[in-house]
Amino acid sequence: MPLVNIRLARRELPTTAAQKAALIAGVTQLMQQVLDKRPDSVTVIIDEVDPENWGQGGEPVTVIRQRSKGPAQA
Amino acid sequence: MPLVNIRLARRELPTTAAQKAALIAGVTQLMQQVLDKRPDSVTVIIDEVDPENWGQGGEPVTVIRQRSKGPAQA
Amino acid sequence: MPLVNIRLARRELPTTAAQKAALIAGVTQLMQQVLDKRPDSVTVIIDEVDPENWGQGGEPVTVIRQRSKGPAQA
Amino acid sequence: MPLVNIRLARRELPTTAAQKAALIAGVTQLMQQVLDKRPDSVTVIIDEVDPENWGQGGEPVTVIRQRSKGPAQA
Amino acid sequence: MPLVNIRLARRELPTTAAQKAALIAGVTQLMQQVLDKRPDSVTVIIDEVDPENWGQGGEPVTVIRQRSKGPAQA
Amino acid sequence: MPLVNIRLARRELPTTAAQKAALIAGVTQLMQQVLDKRPDSVTVIIDEVDPENWGQGGEPVTVIRQRSKGPAQA
Repeated sequence: MPLVNIRLARRELPTTAAQKAALIAGVTQLMQQVLDKRPDSVTVIIDEVDPENWGQGGEPVTVIRQRSKGPAQA
Repeated sequence: MPLVNIRLARRELPTTAAQKAALIAGVTQLMQQVLDKRPDSVTVIIDEVDPENWGQGGEPVTVIRQRSKGPAQA
Repeated sequence: MPLVNIRLARRELPTTAAQKAALIAGVTQLMQQVLDKRPDSVTVIIDEVDPENWGQGGEPVTVIRQRSKGPAQA
Repeated sequence: MPLVNIRLARRELPTTAAQKAALIAGVTQLMQQVLDKRPDSVTVIIDEVDPENWGQGGEPVTVIRQRSKGPAQA
Repeated sequence: MPLVNIRLARRELPTTAAQKAALIAGVTQLMQQVLDKRPDSVTVIIDEVDPENWGQGGEPVTVIRQRSKGPAQA
Repeated sequence: MPLVNIRLARRELPTTAAQKAALIAGVTQLMQQVLDKRPDSVTVIIDEVDPENWGQGGEPVTVIRQRSKGPAQA
């Protein structure tokens, strides 16, 4: 029955279907290992958020990423 | 004042505006009948989630639907 | 698979187990009627929120209710 | 560490990047002023919701707005 | 920056601090492995929900558990 | 119509009713200033989360706070 909601700021290189499947499989396995939940009872929902709509430290992620121009990972 | 959030995995045949209106009307009526809430105080938000982003039983809904190829209803 | 989250400001007369069961049954039935979902695929979670933690119109519900001292229903 | 989630019904005139940045800056400042939180510990996420998916008083916002045809502000 | 929210129906044997720490560590590690996120950027929030407030298949979990009287795991 | 949800890890010195009222008033005012929303249309919900249930950087906040034993602000 556990529900897991993962929220991520969208990146230039979008999260792939394979990465999403790995997140879903990994979280489900964790629920089984730690809490002994049946895998089929686990629901996982991934929300990808526009970086303009995600703020950290008082600024939109779009602004933070422009400034860093680095590997843009956070 | 009640807030109701409905989350659904998007289907090939998208949820229509009429279905959404029926969900909103039905939930609002339920709040009035069960909890005596004023209808104008009820807020309903429907989130349609990409099936690739929704996992059940350790797998994305896209994978589950491909395998079943049945009425794909869940 | 639909998930429904109902958030309510807690009242002096708390929501009873029977009212919660009626909300859960009613929302599940609505999902079946409007979207043809299987009842056993519907999850409903009710969050009861301390009125001090719920604000409407710029004020906590505790303050609004003290002022009205009326049927206090919203 | 505070997380703030702002949900808005999308309007014809969309919320601009500048307005989103002002919301993020304003909420972060408020957390610092009222709760003495470090600005870099504050996360803000803005969700813009399709008006067809937002119900108030038993009706979708699309229907409410069509009827009012006024300044459409709510 | 990822946010992960885990919602669980509370059980008779409550989730221990060690289990919660294992969930937090496991989810954070998964974000690092799958998405290359820095561990210190990952936030995890666990919500334990009263079983009376959690509905599955149209019934509160309290009712489902009473009927099963089995290992009560879901 | 905007909904604002503020999630905080509970601290030893709990958030006071006056602080909550200031958060509610401040967020509502911000919605009016930035987006021209009517104050009475703004809903704010504050969730206080047990520090054992809040993880940052792979650890529960309880563990982080024990280690720091500093002003415990985050």
